Formats: sequence, C-alpha cells, structure tokens
Amino acid sequence: MANDIRITPRSESYSEWYTDVIKAAELVDQSAVRGSMVFRPYGYAIWELIQKELDARIKAGGHQNVYFPLLIPASTLAREAKHVAGFAMESAVVTHHRLKVEDGELIVDPDAKLTEPFVIRPTSEAIMYETFGQWITSWRDLPLLINQWANVMRWEMRTRPFLRTSEFLWQEGHTAHATKEQAVEEQKWALSMYKEVSEQVLALSPVAGEKSPSERFAGADSTMTLEGFMQDGKALQSCTSHMLGQNFSKAFNISFTNQNEQVQSVWQTSWGMSTRILGSVIMTHSDDKGLVLPPTIAPYHVVIIPIFKGDTTATVVESAKQLKADLENAGVRVHLDERDYLSFGERVFEWEKKGVPIRFELGPRDIEQHVVTCVIRDTDGKKTIVRNEVVETVKNELHNLHERLFSRSKKIREEGTRTVTTWDEFKSELSKGGFILGNWDGTEETEAAIKEETGATIRCIPFDNNEPDGVCVYSGKDAIAKVIFAKAY
Amino acid sequence: MANDIRITPRSESYSEWYTDVIKAAELVDQSAVRGSMVFRPYGYAIWELIQKELDARIKAGGHQNVYFPLLIPASTLAREAKHVAGFAMESAVVTHHRLKVEDGELIVDPDAKLTEPFVIRPTSEAIMYETFGQWITSWRDLPLLINQWANVMRWEMRTRPFLRTSEFLWQEGHTAHATKEQAVEEQKWALSMYKEVSEQVLALSPVAGEKSPSERFAGADSTMTLEGFMQDGKALQSCTSHMLGQNFSKAFNISFTNQNEQVQSVWQTSWGMSTRILGSVIMTHSDDKGLVLPPTIAPYHVVIIPIFKGDTTATVVESAKQLKADLENAGVRVHLDERDYLSFGERVFEWEKKGVPIRFELGPRDIEQHVVTCVIRDTDGKKTIVRNEVVETVKNELHNLHERLFSRSKKIREEGTRTVTTWDEFKSELSKGGFILGNWDGTEETEAAIKEETGATIRCIPFDNNEPDGVCVYSGKDAIAKVIFAKAY
Repeated sequence: MANDIRITPRSESYSEWYTDVIKAAELVDQSAVRGSMVFRPYGYAIWELIQKELDARIKAGGHQNVYFPLLIPASTLAREAKHVAGFAMESAVVTHHRLKVEDGELIVDPDAKLTEPFVIRPTSEAIMYETFGQWITSWRDLPLLINQWANVMRWEMRTRPFLRTSEFLWQEGHTAHATKEQAVEEQKWALSMYKEVSEQVLALSPVAGEKSPSERFAGADSTMTLEGFMQDGKALQSCTSHMLGQNFSKAFNISFTNQNEQVQSVWQTSWGMSTRILGSVIMTHSDDKGLVLPPTIAPYHVVIIPIFKGDTTATVVESAKQLKADLENAGVRVHLDERDYLSFGERVFEWEKKGVPIRFELGPRDIEQHVVTCVIRDTDGKKTIVRNEVVETVKNELHNLHERLFSRSKKIREEGTRTVTTWDEFKSELSKGGFILGNWDGTEETEAAIKEETGATIRCIPFDNNEPDGVCVYSGKDAIAKVIFAKAY
Repeated sequence: MANDIRITPRSESYSEWYTDVIKAAELVDQSAVRGSMVFRPYGYAIWELIQKELDARIKAGGHQNVYFPLLIPASTLAREAKHVAGFAMESAVVTHHRLKVEDGELIVDPDAKLTEPFVIRPTSEAIMYETFGQWITSWRDLPLLINQWANVMRWEMRTRPFLRTSEFLWQEGHTAHATKEQAVEEQKWALSMYKEVSEQVLALSPVAGEKSPSERFAGADSTMTLEGFMQDGKALQSCTSHMLGQNFSKAFNISFTNQNEQVQSVWQTSWGMSTRILGSVIMTHSDDKGLVLPPTIAPYHVVIIPIFKGDTTATVVESAKQLKADLENAGVRVHLDERDYLSFGERVFEWEKKGVPIRFELGPRDIEQHVVTCVIRDTDGKKTIVRNEVVETVKNELHNLHERLFSRSKKIREEGTRTVTTWDEFKSELSKGGFILGNWDGTEETEAAIKEETGATIRCIPFDNNEPDGVCVYSGKDAIAKVIFAKAY
C-alpha cells in the first residue's frame, strides 16, 4: 500500500532518475498504446493548473477559444507543401470506419474503407485554415485571434514520458493579421507570454531566441523558441511561436479586402505549449528525493501529516482539521493525510516524492505549545511556526520557495553556458554538457556537420548577445551570429 | 459584414429553424470532415461555461480528473463482448502510421501498416479499465472516483449539429466500488448531479428514469437517463449514468482484497454528458428570432449597444464604458458593441440572434435622464432602469429570466405528456407529438413492434409515477410498468 518506489540517484543514471521521479510521484502511467501516456490524477491536476495560467493570459490577450475537428483529410494536409512534408511521415492514419468480427477475431472491415484517408491532427494549421477563409473577408475581420486546447498525435518511434509521446495535450494559438508587422508583433507577444508563464508560474529560466532555418516549424518563415536548461546540461525546447508569413494564406486562399479596396492575403502566426513542459519542470527542479514543484502548479501547497499516538490522536486530528480550514480560507490548497494504516514515515516519504512544497508534521506536543512543525520541500529545512502566524508564514514560504527555484534555475543555466572560440574548445566544453555559445557562419552545411560530429544542434539564435565577435567556430568563415549549441531532448 | 442570416420560422420547418438558429448565432460551422463540427468562439464559450459548472460539481463530489489515450487497441476493445458489439460498427479505425507522396499525391504508405488496428475512442471504458486493475488492489483503494474531459468519435452516417456528430466533446465519469450498493448510489448521484445542472444551470426540465434493457449502454446492467422534451414534442436523451455491475471488472480483471482478505471483482459505474446538451438548450429555449440562452451559460449577460448620433457619440460611448465597468465589477459579463460601421438595427438583430439575455440600448436622452433602456431577450419587454439601480436590476432580471425559461420548459413538458390506455389512443396522441405515458408488458417484442409501427421508442421508465394501472397498451398483457414513449432525436 505504501508508495515504496526507490528513486535512482541522478549520479547513477539521470535517465532512470527521471522515469523514477515520474513513477514515484504518480504523474503518469504507461498505457497499452505505445508512446501514449495515462495521466493519473496528480499529474493531470498539475497540467490543469498550468492550463489555467495559460488560458487566463491567452484570453486577456484578446484571444478566444475554439475547437476544430480531430481528423484532417489527407488532401487538406497536402495543401501547404512544406507543412505536409514535415508531418506526413509521422501521422496516425484513419482508413476505415468499422471493425468486424471474423473467426472470433476483431478485424478491419474491408467494406468500410473511406474514400480518402484522414490523419489525426499532428497540429491544426491545415484543418483550421481551410475554414479561416470563410471567416475573413474584410480588414474589419482582422486580427483574428484564436486558441484551441486539444490532443494531438505524432507517431514517434522512440518515446519518453512528457518529452516525446505519440499523443500529447497542448494549446495552439492561431492568428491572422492585415500586415506583416502585426503578425511579427503577435509572434513576439506569444513568446513573451510563454516567458512570463515560465518564470512566474513554473520558476524556469529558459533562453529566448530564434530557431535556425533548418529547425523551423514546417511551413513557417520564422520560429521563436524558449530553450530550457536541464540539470544534466541538455536543452529542452519548451514552446514555439511561429511567423507563418503568407505561406498558408496563399495555399488556403485566406484573403481580405483592405481599406483601399485591395484584396490581399493575410499574415499568420501559430504558437503552442504542450504537456512536454512538465518534463522541463521535472528535470529542472526535482532532486534525488523526488519531484519538486513550484507552488503555483502544486495540486497541494501544504500537506498536513498528523502523528497518531494513543489517546492524543483525536485531539491532533481535530487540530489538523482546524489548521486545514484556516489555510483554505486564505486560498491555500491543503491536503490532510489521515491514513492510519501507513506509518508516519511512509506518509512523509510519499508527499516528499510528490513534491508538495510544505509539509506540516503535527503532533500532541506542537498543539500544547501552540506551534506547527513545518518542512520546506526544496531546502528540507525544518521550522517551528507559531500557530497564530501560520497563514502568513505559509504564504511567505511559498513565495520564497518559488524565488529560490527560479534563481537556481537561472544560475544553473547561466553557469552552464560557456562561450567558445575554437573548434577544440567547442568539443571539449560540449563534452562537459551545457550550452555552448559560439559564432556561426549561418550555413546549413556547418550546422549539419556540427550535429554529425558532436550530436549538438543549434538550439537558437538568442535575442540577447547574438552579435558575432569572430569567425565561425567550425568553418572559420565569417560569422553571422553568435548562437547556442547544445545536445537536446 | 452584418449578420443577415434569415431564420426560418418554426411553423414553416422546425428542422430548418434549428440549423438556422445555430448558423445565425455563429455557434458552429460545418467542416471538411463529414459530421465533425467546428466550434466557433461563441459556441465554444457556451460549452466552456457548461464545463465549468459540471467540473465544479464533479470535483466537489470527490472525483479527480485524468486523461487516457485517444486510441484503443482492437484487442482491448474486444475484451467485453457486449461493449465491443455496441461500438465496433461505428468506430474510426487507425491502420497506418504514415502517409507518403506517390505521383504527386498523398497516399497511405503500405510499409507503415500497424501490427494491430486501433480505434479512436467511442467511449473510454475499455482503455481505462485496462489500467484500473493496476491501481486497485485493496479495499483501501476504493472507491476510485475519476472523470475525464475528452473528444470521442462515433462514425455516424446521418449527422446533425450537436445532436449527432462523428466527433463530440464530453466528460465521462468512471468509478469503481467495493459493493453493488455503493455503485448504485454513485449511479444515482451522477444522475442527480446532471438533474441539478439541467435545472439550475440550463433551465431545462427533463424527465429522469431508467432505460429499458434494449436501450441500455453496451455492457451495462442498468442505464439511467434524463430525457428532455423539445418544442416539437420529440425527446432528446441529455445524458446517461450506467451501473456496469461486474461485467467489465470480470473482463478486465479488476479485483480487490476486501477487509476479510477475500479477493472480489469491483462494481463499476460510468456516466457522461456531452456537447449534445447544447442541442437540447437550443431546441428548448430558442424562438423564431434566434437563440435564447439561460444566463449562467450566456458568454455575455448584457450587451450594450450605444446609439451613434453626431456630436453626442463621444458622451454616449464614455457613459457606456462606465456602465460596462460598473456591471463587470459586480460579476456581470458585458460586451460593448462599438461597431460604427453597422447600423443600430443590425447590431440589435445580431445580439438578439445570439441570445444575449439583456440588451441595453443607450442614447443621449437616456444619459440626460440618468436611465438605461433595456430589452429582455425572452419576453422582448422594454424597460427603463434608473442608472443607479442598474446592477441590482440586472441581477434580478437575469434571475427572473432563468426562472421563466425553467418554468416554461417544465410546463411544456408536463402539458405535452399524455396518458393513454388503448392502442388507438396511443397512435392518435403520438401523431400530435409529445410524450406518451402508457403501460408496458416489459417485453422486447412489444417495444420493437411499437417502434416498427409508430417510430416511437421507450424513452425511459420514469422514477415517478411508473406504477402500472392496467394492461399493456399494445399487447393487452399484464404490464410491469408505466413508461414514456416518444419519437426521439
């Protein structure tokens, strides 16, 4: 009954540590469907809190939610050439609309073949833009600012929970504008919104920048990204914001009459953040004892673990309930763990593994002395709080915990980012892990050669400090920018 | 630019009226995917408000949200015999994981055939219960109370917006219990929760009852339902709550050790409400002018339409903004329609079609006299409200509007329900439309014969007034219950 999953230390195997943390925190399960996760209650509750924060900002930015079909006809997907090339290879294909029983086995009914195959959306540009043309006729219909919460599917051959799964959940923003400038503004708005959520909600400190042409979204003129820095020095792409130019509007005939009565194609953007971000949260904040959660996305801010001891038990539970009520009235999310069939230690370890920010250990002595013993998850520091000051202290501790996680995340990333000027330096620094900042000649050949030789890719051309200050670290040719190289998830 | 969609009067064609109301209110569009809707912003906002109300009640009832995979392996679906028989015939089947380009056309790649076909979930019993067995081992793990918000797909041949679509959105509750009694309690809890939402949120007055065996969910021992009464006298099944007995727990090996150390199969329930409920809301409340919305699910409670007239325009808009702010501070959802390129009448008709409960028509004279002219959607009554009392008046009017819609819904259903004792009476009353209450002998043969001869089905055995008081209205044999017959959507 007790959650006795042992967590492999990071020093032993970072990869096993990651899967152990997820298992021990009961976030997701493997399912019968290869590469698709089962989100358990605790894991889904975290995603719901992230959704709430994103949704509020997206709506405050003037966007409205919609819902488009799951299935995309192959001919619709095919309308934008680069887009289909990017997604046709990894899509689940629906070919029939019926199964039938034959010889006691359930098989595909050959009589129920569809006239055209459908793919399960890997992303919704194609299916949405098929309709956008009907919604937009005049400049007065612009900007069109919409968002969708949905499941999407990309048939991945090698999967890992959150990081790479066949099915995942996300939001996808899709907008149409009268001018290129407005679309670029929107693309930037989305990235800055994601940056705010990363920093203020998730306590992450990713680098913001632009993708190199070869790493762009299929069909985009420009892709902006936030690249997270994981504890093992690898990068994790946390979200993207694309300037689609007029590529889709021309392919899907989305045009409008401007104020001078001219018919023009709209300028578009799309942007998304997915359940992948949970992988980033786990790999940035967690430790060898398990998950560590920033308070804003913690299903419970506080867990109260009463100490059961003979005839004081009733008093302790009564007091724990009052404590819970006081905190909840102040907007704190609290769980009281009354499971008397588990030892005190078993309950402590379970909530530690689940990353609850503050743990209250409540015994008869605390009650006598009008105090509460509290343990903060990230520092493991034990504190005695005066009972009357519990609400205020908890709020401060939650705030401080967030700040500590954020500062640490920033510090690790800054310290793990090293500037190199020669190819030998590049290889030697990369072997230690981390982000490598170096000059790049801007060619796809150099990018491909570096990837081939070292496994590192250009994560982004950062918005800050991207001025080249020498020749390309690989080719020795003139550099066009200083970029971030790293191995990535 | 103006929304000039004409709405066919109900007297002319109820069916065209229904699709016109949906089109004029901009709720959903047809999509390129047969039978799948595009939820437009206004339609989706209504669904989000319904979700919020359901989700809060489901969570308050102790249930936690989860998310399971979209795809179900055919062999998993096949594990419960009745269940698969009910769903295999109408499922979208995924057979390949890749498309490829051949002769310039996008086709299914024969080299990417899956070893086993998957169906897109028509409902999630099979995929969930495959995992439940891992979550449940002891009586301490029970009850397991979970809920999922998801898209599901049933390949329908004849589709109609909301009522019957290939893809739809819903919540599905799934629970497991130690005893049969607890499962029955849960089944009833879900139905009463739906009844509360129907009455208090949607202003609907459906009949609660149990389905006859032939109309049960595939794999259930009992199905409870709420049957709505539409304006044309047809019934609409609004939601269902199933007692699954041990059918699935035996098929999927979901067992637990009870307090006496005996291993037993769990007792299960499942229950769902979908976007279909929007069809019920539309067909119950709307009129020849368009949509009528109960306030709780209206994206805007109030729309303010300023009258633009020469140099008073600035003052009027200024005053409208203040009015909006005052109402929003009191929690009222308000939209200010400042589109100066539409006439006053065009704006009025648009919001009337969209069913906004209260319309403010604000001109310079109102401002001078410190009043607001207001029109209530359902009664079309024009009122003059003292500006200082606007917030209180609006709240009262919204409350009264809900009550009127609910009372009318109840009255129409009660007046449209007629008791019959003979077969001739049955046929003559049914031809007028409505619910027919009559004695039934409890056999499937009678049920099938009545359906064959009249098109009417047993909607439910109502919880109230189901005592038989004579012989079967069709067969003349002994009756087991008094049931509701009707034609249905």
